[in-house]
Amino acid sequence: MIYFDNSATTKPYKEVLHTFTKVNEQLFANPSSIHSFGGRVEKLMQQAREQVASLLHVQGKEIIFTSGGTESNNLAIKGAALRYRNRGKHLITLKIEHPSVLNAFKQLEEFGYSVTYLDVDESGKVDPAMVEKEIREDTILISIMHVNNEVGTIQPIMKISEILQRYPKVIFHVDHVQGCGKVPLEMKHSRIDLCTISAHKVHGLKGTGLLYKRDGINLSPILTGGEQEANIRSGTENVGGIASFAKALRLHFSKTENDIKKMFDIQRYLRDELEKLDEVIIHTPKADQAPHIINFSVKHFKAEVLVHALDKHEIFVSTTSACSSKQSKPSRTLLSMGVPLEIAESSLRISLSFENTLEEAKQFLQVFNTEINSLMKTMRRSK
Amino acid sequence: MIYFDNSATTKPYKEVLHTFTKVNEQLFANPSSIHSFGGRVEKLMQQAREQVASLLHVQGKEIIFTSGGTESNNLAIKGAALRYRNRGKHLITLKIEHPSVLNAFKQLEEFGYSVTYLDVDESGKVDPAMVEKEIREDTILISIMHVNNEVGTIQPIMKISEILQRYPKVIFHVDHVQGCGKVPLEMKHSRIDLCTISAHKVHGLKGTGLLYKRDGINLSPILTGGEQEANIRSGTENVGGIASFAKALRLHFSKTENDIKKMFDIQRYLRDELEKLDEVIIHTPKADQAPHIINFSVKHFKAEVLVHALDKHEIFVSTTSACSSKQSKPSRTLLSMGVPLEIAESSLRISLSFENTLEEAKQFLQVFNTEINSLMKTMRRSK
Ligand SMILES: Cc1ncc(COP(=O)(O)O)c(C=O)c1O
Ligand SMILES: Cc1ncc(COP(=O)(O)O)c(C=O)c1O
Repeated sequence: MIYFDNSATTKPYKEVLHTFTKVNEQLFANPSSIHSFGGRVEKLMQQAREQVASLLHVQGKEIIFTSGGTESNNLAIKGAALRYRNRGKHLITLKIEHPSVLNAFKQLEEFGYSVTYLDVDESGKVDPAMVEKEIREDTILISIMHVNNEVGTIQPIMKISEILQRYPKVIFHVDHVQGCGKVPLEMKHSRIDLCTISAHKVHGLKGTGLLYKRDGINLSPILTGGEQEANIRSGTENVGGIASFAKALRLHFSKTENDIKKMFDIQRYLRDELEKLDEVIIHTPKADQAPHIINFSVKHFKAEVLVHALDKHEIFVSTTSACSSKQSKPSRTLLSMGVPLEIAESSLRISLSFENTLEEAKQFLQVFNTEINSLMKTMRRSK
Repeated sequence: MIYFDNSATTKPYKEVLHTFTKVNEQLFANPSSIHSFGGRVEKLMQQAREQVASLLHVQGKEIIFTSGGTESNNLAIKGAALRYRNRGKHLITLKIEHPSVLNAFKQLEEFGYSVTYLDVDESGKVDPAMVEKEIREDTILISIMHVNNEVGTIQPIMKISEILQRYPKVIFHVDHVQGCGKVPLEMKHSRIDLCTISAHKVHGLKGTGLLYKRDGINLSPILTGGEQEANIRSGTENVGGIASFAKALRLHFSKTENDIKKMFDIQRYLRDELEKLDEVIIHTPKADQAPHIINFSVKHFKAEVLVHALDKHEIFVSTTSACSSKQSKPSRTLLSMGVPLEIAESSLRISLSFENTLEEAKQFLQVFNTEINSLMKTMRRSK
């Protein structure tokens, strides 16, 4: 199998599953229980929190564990919007955000909030000056993704962060799900107030995520109850998931610049080889792109046809993002970048993990070429 | 170790962890991915959904998987309140609900909803007639727990259900977290529209739960995004958690009437023996109580002192519910039942699983008696 769909989800590290099992076998008590068994579990969880915080260079109390990236984005956006509603009801985001961001804003619109959805340029990037231009007296929240999940464009988070130094009252949220561990992001010494990370994108487990919440920022909880996670996120904590999230992050962050360079090498190799084909149009920009994504269209082919052709060889790539693919909607990101509909509908995404090799990329290209040629022959015959 | 804190959480079954690991090793793809690997994962998840539905005698499409009981309660209550807000803004619940229910209502009050919190009698039960009396033209939702998590009282859900046949527009939500698998509950042929179950209370994994949502009932999602779970609950599905939840429920539901009878026997034995002690007051009622909980106070002793005394012998019981215990608030349920504050502060909860034995109950009583006597001696000396 060649698994090239790591932006959809990654394979959990062996050590991650081992930690999860061990915690659930041995330390299964409820961390809120006051007996010493509960105390041991609570301690383990706090150790995981501190470990995660130290990897992210923030404080333990600034980490809120959640059920995943979607919940973290919802908590950040709805939580800030509700909490600061008396200050204003204007919010800013990008047209190319992940649905868990976009649909949170759409729901807030139903409840009287006004949202500015910013355009991006042909490389998928927002102009920081445009962000500033939209800030109003009643703007309470700006949410900008770090790395786009469909094409891999990196947004100018640090430039926006500098601009926001002049707007201390505006909350700044960053969806870091795709960037985490592959594209460095400075949280502490920046204007980032809220930051989303999902475990299953870094070889952790589905159903675990976190929200970094800068000390001093308040949020209205969206899951209320037993007041866990400093009363920002109630619910019996998934301690096994949390401990194994810490493990996943530690392993993922232990990847060196050299590992990232290798990933860029595979990406460049794929780009160079794909560019040689007349039918291929590459969408992932050549600058300010993450190392793990390469998105391209093959003219005259529906993306699904290619996915299924590769499938027969146990090569797994995706059309657009996993969420949208079932609904077979064309990629919102590509359309926003000005890619014509027909081309957008032919787009494939390869997304790498540190486990992928150049050898796999070579095998992929071989199969890809063969399949394209045979499909073209069939097409010509049927004309 | 004698683990008597099963209402806080249970030990995951070996088979549950096995399923979780296998899914995460072999079927780790995103079920929303359109390649065949994603398809296999999607199929597994749908099988788990059908299995769960058939155990509950409902339809697969009526099951929404969530991150736990807290999320299910929040989704049911806030989701119904938001969805049906144009019909009315009056809600009814009990004073003795779990915090994940009560605090959801408290938050809705901030947003202009009006909530009636009903009293219970000295056995912890609500009078169905009282429920009916509070129903108004603008009542949209009634939320009543099945089994109380602190004393084990079973609420008259079927009687309320009958009354609600005459109020077809009122949504009826039941928190079934403590009852599931131990006290039968008829969902399909009743007026129950929404029903919460949590996996980690039935030897499944923390971080997994479900909401039964009767076909035809609509909810506003509280986690929006990629439109998973029929667009009621977005977020990449915790497939391993879901598959192992199905496994846990199947094993839990395979317990026979005889297993439940054995649990009642242990409960009765504990009651009979504890009643012999002058200092003990038993709060769990003798009728309409679940088999797994026995709540009692030991006069003149702070509950924490007793928890810690038992702790030394690796016997784990709890004071009130796990959530509230850290905040060392007295049990809201006991106070509502008319138990005086001082007595409520001395209350202990033993909560059983099917794994517990009469032998353990005997051992517990031996240790308990010894500890009480030695503590009394110390007390007398210090007077
Ligand atoms: C950029 C981005 N944000 C958020 C999410 C949602 O995270 P999760 O799958 O953990 O809900 C994803 C992945 O699905 C993503 O790619
Ligand atoms: C009656 C009741 N409802 C809801 C919950 C919350 O479930 P969870 O721990 O899965 O969030 C619990 C347990 O904590 C409970 O006992």
